[in-house]
Amino acid sequence: MERTVEALAGEVGGTVVGDGTVRITGLAGLKDARAGDLSFVAGPEFLRFVESTHASALLVGERFPLEFDRPRIRVDDPAAAMERLVPSFRVDESLPRGVDPRASLADDVVLGDDVTIGPGATVARGASIGDRAVLHPGVHVGPGCVIGADCELHSGVVVRARATLGARVVLHAGTIVGADGFGYRSSKAGHEKLEHVGTVVIEDDVEIGANCVVDRARFGRTVIGAGTKIDNLCQVAHNVRLGRACLLAAQVGVSGSTVLGDGVVVGGQAGFSQNLDVGAGTMVSARAGVIKDHAPGSVLYGNPAGERTEKKREVVALRRLPGLLARLKRLEAICGSERGEAS
Amino acid sequence: MERTVEALAGEVGGTVVGDGTVRITGLAGLKDARAGDLSFVAGPEFLRFVESTHASALLVGERFPLEFDRPRIRVDDPAAAMERLVPSFRVDESLPRGVDPRASLADDVVLGDDVTIGPGATVARGASIGDRAVLHPGVHVGPGCVIGADCELHSGVVVRARATLGARVVLHAGTIVGADGFGYRSSKAGHEKLEHVGTVVIEDDVEIGANCVVDRARFGRTVIGAGTKIDNLCQVAHNVRLGRACLLAAQVGVSGSTVLGDGVVVGGQAGFSQNLDVGAGTMVSARAGVIKDHAPGSVLYGNPAGERTEKKREVVALRRLPGLLARLKRLEAICGSERGEAS
Amino acid sequence: MERTVEALAGEVGGTVVGDGTVRITGLAGLKDARAGDLSFVAGPEFLRFVESTHASALLVGERFPLEFDRPRIRVDDPAAAMERLVPSFRVDESLPRGVDPRASLADDVVLGDDVTIGPGATVARGASIGDRAVLHPGVHVGPGCVIGADCELHSGVVVRARATLGARVVLHAGTIVGADGFGYRSSKAGHEKLEHVGTVVIEDDVEIGANCVVDRARFGRTVIGAGTKIDNLCQVAHNVRLGRACLLAAQVGVSGSTVLGDGVVVGGQAGFSQNLDVGAGTMVSARAGVIKDHAPGSVLYGNPAGERTEKKREVVALRRLPGLLARLKRLEAICGSERGEAS
Repeated sequence: MERTVEALAGEVGGTVVGDGTVRITGLAGLKDARAGDLSFVAGPEFLRFVESTHASALLVGERFPLEFDRPRIRVDDPAAAMERLVPSFRVDESLPRGVDPRASLADDVVLGDDVTIGPGATVARGASIGDRAVLHPGVHVGPGCVIGADCELHSGVVVRARATLGARVVLHAGTIVGADGFGYRSSKAGHEKLEHVGTVVIEDDVEIGANCVVDRARFGRTVIGAGTKIDNLCQVAHNVRLGRACLLAAQVGVSGSTVLGDGVVVGGQAGFSQNLDVGAGTMVSARAGVIKDHAPGSVLYGNPAGERTEKKREVVALRRLPGLLARLKRLEAICGSERGEAS
Repeated sequence: MERTVEALAGEVGGTVVGDGTVRITGLAGLKDARAGDLSFVAGPEFLRFVESTHASALLVGERFPLEFDRPRIRVDDPAAAMERLVPSFRVDESLPRGVDPRASLADDVVLGDDVTIGPGATVARGASIGDRAVLHPGVHVGPGCVIGADCELHSGVVVRARATLGARVVLHAGTIVGADGFGYRSSKAGHEKLEHVGTVVIEDDVEIGANCVVDRARFGRTVIGAGTKIDNLCQVAHNVRLGRACLLAAQVGVSGSTVLGDGVVVGGQAGFSQNLDVGAGTMVSARAGVIKDHAPGSVLYGNPAGERTEKKREVVALRRLPGLLARLKRLEAICGSERGEAS
Repeated sequence: MERTVEALAGEVGGTVVGDGTVRITGLAGLKDARAGDLSFVAGPEFLRFVESTHASALLVGERFPLEFDRPRIRVDDPAAAMERLVPSFRVDESLPRGVDPRASLADDVVLGDDVTIGPGATVARGASIGDRAVLHPGVHVGPGCVIGADCELHSGVVVRARATLGARVVLHAGTIVGADGFGYRSSKAGHEKLEHVGTVVIEDDVEIGANCVVDRARFGRTVIGAGTKIDNLCQVAHNVRLGRACLLAAQVGVSGSTVLGDGVVVGGQAGFSQNLDVGAGTMVSARAGVIKDHAPGSVLYGNPAGERTEKKREVVALRRLPGLLARLKRLEAICGSERGEAS
């Protein structure tokens, strides 16, 4: 993917200023860039980063006002041009096509067309793998699983126990789907395991980050709705139902049987208690702790979480609290209140 | 495991109402159920979900009062009948018996009777694997480890460095036991690693969820007591000692050398500072941050965590704080307090 | 590594009191110790644990005042002597040297001298592995990656997409480097994935705990500075830049494009919002939620995080709040304030 400034200018319909033979090996922001990188100046607010950038070349607008001792590519819209170059700098992580001889497939596995399976991957009996799906090295697919067309399962992914994945599902490395739910019948004699005989359904176009866990249901299904995107290290417990097109940032936890409606957006490290019903379109701030049901369109904040406006009033009031104590003391001095308690 | 309504009725001693030839492929709650599922009506409070259920058949009590256009199985106790059917719907995830030829075992590994080891698993020198233990594909057992009888280690589990597992221990996929503790001797020159030469002891009947980490001790042992159950994505640091029959929900973190007594129950995303002593039977709410020692039987809540009753008073008071500010202003207007500070 | 009390005494220049033929198999603290362990009495404050210890022998100072029915080794400084014995009790986890025939290496992989690669490991095309580096069983190194000299990648580690690791980097088991950053262009039609064509740079002497995730950059690089140490289950998002010699405790999350200066120390379960700039030497308490920029040398506490002193005043004031409400009521009774609102 390395090429010259001149070649890149051609791809975006820009004009080279300076040495077009300089070779570019990557893309980067102005502050991040190193030698070999092409960077871009998206607007006047970024001009202040130009002097100290280590980029080897810049995408600039037509009226770029600065001196610069390295080549530039002049274009109408530098951010759009940068975007257009992105796919060509993609690292090709494709595996050799077909099923690697060091993969282990049960006799009755059903493979679609153009399936790719890497070395060390395992597919158990009764599983089926859809057209063009890719299983990276070391992936384990359990008995009876259905992996949809165009799915990509990265290294170390484990899918257990009849889980089904729709089309175009991406599971990043180390993610576990279909582990036993966490449920016990507790008594003085100890914790007796409740069997979880349900499964997991992951609908089309879901993407789940690295090292997440999605547990299978006690009965029925844990469901992740179509188009939902989950960041790394998230926990989705047994019988949870996430709606369509939700966004969960990293390290979020959703406890058993909680339901999030469509389009719910959750900030990092937030958590949900069990058996909740959180309405569609709700926004949950990072680190919030949601402990009761909320209507569609709620904006939640804090721990325990409340409507954002109400919680913000509490935070502001809390900051004024030390001053308030002093004011109260003065009033007591003036009014002669008898204080019957230590304060 | 698919069978007819009639067959299922026979297994639970119930009476079929309607078409006993309908085929059932799974179990589910009324709200979750899809075509092919058998569901159940545990009591009158669930009758309102019957009209909209997609279940293909229902387990109902003797006095089920509703119309229903699909078959029912009449029993004395629908919930108990459902429970009785659970094991027969379990997905069989058993591996082919014996040691897969694609597993890698050191020459001196000691194997019990009826051990199952999947493809790609590795067992290092000096390790022993107990009777009937199961190592799923891709499990790695380090040198000198002792894996007890009837243990089950799911795919991607890594057990390092002389760790010992008692009988019937279950480690879910992706869990790491025996990683180095996090300890450094810090100076201006940087952070010098403290070697961790201890190990991990996991006692009988412990179950640990997916993608957890249990670090090994600096000296001595990190210990997880018999019958303790840990949910997914939990962190157990070096030299921690968890008592017997504890329950830790998902994403909990326990810092180095902290001791939890027997039967401690911890809600999701809670955390413990290092070197603490938390008494037996203590209950810790979800998202609590425990930062000091607590007596047996404590009920902890909030961050920093305090006794639940005290913390609840704070939360209630905090909600009243904005109104309180207004009241204080009114009093000041009445009493003529001079305010020498911005508020 | 098992040897007699007498042999150990020789290694630390100590004098045996009692039976020098007792065999020692491990090291442990007084409270943790079991039969076979050598423990130590670092100072008079530890004497109270001697009576109940199960250690088979003790390292004691010259003026050890207690009766003890098992052998002792008398030395000047028991803690220093213990430290000197640590390396010899290290478990040897080394793999057989060389590249295991069950590893899968692309044809063009460049291997340094004395590289060790375990069974089931995969190294993709264009990758290079430095001198003396160790890849444990099941490690996956993606295309174009550069693994520096003396690196150690534990089982289940996945390094994707042109990531580069400096010298002496340790990645503990299950850690994922170079997963896609979490970024989407959202509209009514859904969440369209933003391609992440950047990579990850991990500098010399970094150590990352088990089951962590470091995402690759959208453009440019996610960078972890030299000598930084990260505990288990941490999340480092796309384009984050961690300075040199930082310490991140377990379960910390750093959101996209946030920059931590050199020597920042972060307590467990803390989180950082995106696009922040946190100055060098800042200390962040466990469970803090950092949501804005902070100057170098800040001491942060709470959620949302503020300077520790300010936050502590809030916590103290909060505890006094219930009493304050009572005082306000009394004042209102005295002063005759009309209350126009429910309280």
